[in-house]
Amino acid sequence: MDNSQTEWFWSRYEEYRAMVNKYIEDYLSSLDIPSELRGASSHLILSGGKRVRPIFVLSVSELLGGDLEHSLPVATAIEFLHNFTLIHDDIMDQDMFRRGVKTTHVLYGVSTAILAGDYLFSLVFGLVSRNYRGEEARFLTKLLAEASENICIGQAMDIQPDKYVKGVDDYIKMVYLKTASLIEASTASGAVVAGRIDLVDRFRELGKSIGIAFQVADDILGLVGDPSKTGKPVGNDIRNGKRTLPVLYVLDKMDKDEYEFFMSVFGNEGADDESVKRAIDLVVKYGGINYAREFMGEYSRRARDTLKGFEDSDAKSFLINLIEFIVSRDK
Amino acid sequence: MDNSQTEWFWSRYEEYRAMVNKYIEDYLSSLDIPSELRGASSHLILSGGKRVRPIFVLSVSELLGGDLEHSLPVATAIEFLHNFTLIHDDIMDQDMFRRGVKTTHVLYGVSTAILAGDYLFSLVFGLVSRNYRGEEARFLTKLLAEASENICIGQAMDIQPDKYVKGVDDYIKMVYLKTASLIEASTASGAVVAGRIDLVDRFRELGKSIGIAFQVADDILGLVGDPSKTGKPVGNDIRNGKRTLPVLYVLDKMDKDEYEFFMSVFGNEGADDESVKRAIDLVVKYGGINYAREFMGEYSRRARDTLKGFEDSDAKSFLINLIEFIVSRDK
Repeated sequence: MDNSQTEWFWSRYEEYRAMVNKYIEDYLSSLDIPSELRGASSHLILSGGKRVRPIFVLSVSELLGGDLEHSLPVATAIEFLHNFTLIHDDIMDQDMFRRGVKTTHVLYGVSTAILAGDYLFSLVFGLVSRNYRGEEARFLTKLLAEASENICIGQAMDIQPDKYVKGVDDYIKMVYLKTASLIEASTASGAVVAGRIDLVDRFRELGKSIGIAFQVADDILGLVGDPSKTGKPVGNDIRNGKRTLPVLYVLDKMDKDEYEFFMSVFGNEGADDESVKRAIDLVVKYGGINYAREFMGEYSRRARDTLKGFEDSDAKSFLINLIEFIVSRDK
Repeated sequence: MDNSQTEWFWSRYEEYRAMVNKYIEDYLSSLDIPSELRGASSHLILSGGKRVRPIFVLSVSELLGGDLEHSLPVATAIEFLHNFTLIHDDIMDQDMFRRGVKTTHVLYGVSTAILAGDYLFSLVFGLVSRNYRGEEARFLTKLLAEASENICIGQAMDIQPDKYVKGVDDYIKMVYLKTASLIEASTASGAVVAGRIDLVDRFRELGKSIGIAFQVADDILGLVGDPSKTGKPVGNDIRNGKRTLPVLYVLDKMDKDEYEFFMSVFGNEGADDESVKRAIDLVVKYGGINYAREFMGEYSRRARDTLKGFEDSDAKSFLINLIEFIVSRDK
């Protein structure tokens, strides 16, 4: 992207985001509910967030000639679904902070945080069934229910990685379930609300591919990202023992001594910087980073390919830029 | 009911229940998911349960000429929704046992229990969107999403009864949201799957009325039920400080000394039997039990009235018996 295109892309991104934020804020303030439930279910979603999933809904819908106003309820439903999973994940992982603010269960207690997540999840299907009709509503419900089922299954795998994530294939399955399936539902929903149910499979492929590329980009940044940009210490994912794509790729390629050394550092929160650096060097040496970059490149190509054949438009340029941004980001 | 009718009613009840149980078991075993998630999401639902909500779906559908096979997916979805709320409620209330077995979080840990509830909730909308079409699917989704929203709001009120349940009207609102709204969704869903969307409001009224009567019956049994039948100690609800309909009705009717005495026993888990008995006597003296019985009678009448005008049939007799059973049960 040259500078003027980058500028255009971000200003369009902010326009979409402002539309989504306004809809979310108006909707949440219209609810007649106890103040604790309002606070707990609004806290995370109003604390920020990139809104990338709703923006996929809007931009795909726009690409296919859909009406943005008509697309906003399901775009919001998907953001609610995403935030519901974050609230419950933070309880499960006992995380204290997200997006720079305290997590919902820290502020409101575990019980109210569970309830707030459940309530947001209820609103997902309320939004869909009150704002759409007939097969359009049914298709959206099906996409969001399947994504929810997938996220839960992916999370169950992620809770026990030693049992369920043994190799590259397991990992990609888990990433699809836990992360990519909701992006898949976002892009597919964009096609549904534009009245193009015939294109749902093609736009599933867009979201699925970009979702997997997105996670692999994260994996690469977690190992060789610039800490001054990512905001995370060097080798964070090594100390946390995250079984990411580059790591899974190299585990069975090291010799015995290297493997033993690697495993003494991997998941060892007290490991010193020098050992962490040597562990990362092993991942690089055995091609883990290159493999992940090629993998990401392949999936971003698949994502771009789904857009071939559509006439040039702002929405198409926007989506191409969004794919490009997701795989080339440095934070 | 005479004996032969009682026998007929229960044998029909068991037929419905067996159909529901078979569908639930077949469906759960068809899922390709990690074993911990399967165990945690199946545990409670396979440990028993009256299946009264799915049986309302089936019997209303049958009354209106619907096909029972066609009614089973949403009947099952409603039972999943009910069990999801129980699993999460048990975490919030830190309850150790339900239906005579350990609760899900005790057996599988809080994280997996949260996830199991979320997964069941996802399946609710998966079942509806995969088994129904068009407006039928949309209506069912709307009924179940609204019930879910209501249950969360009712639960938020119930977590802080001092703030949100100050009098009889608040209490009935809370009971509607937390308990009756899912029975309302059950009877209304029965109308939808029988192709009678025109009768949804009437069958909402049936479920709403019977749901409220059901809870008030519980309230009465919790104060003056026979412990040898209810399985709960005398005055259990007094020691637990449950602000039920009979209690809320009499609170502002006692004189100052009586009120002070009552409040010294109410919610006092260590209160002796004699004091608990005197507290119950105060509720009786000021008409709390009579008021609750009349209230329940009024709501069961409303429920029966919704069935007027339908030709006599087994399904109609069954529903009338079911209403009768719910309000006259002694356990």
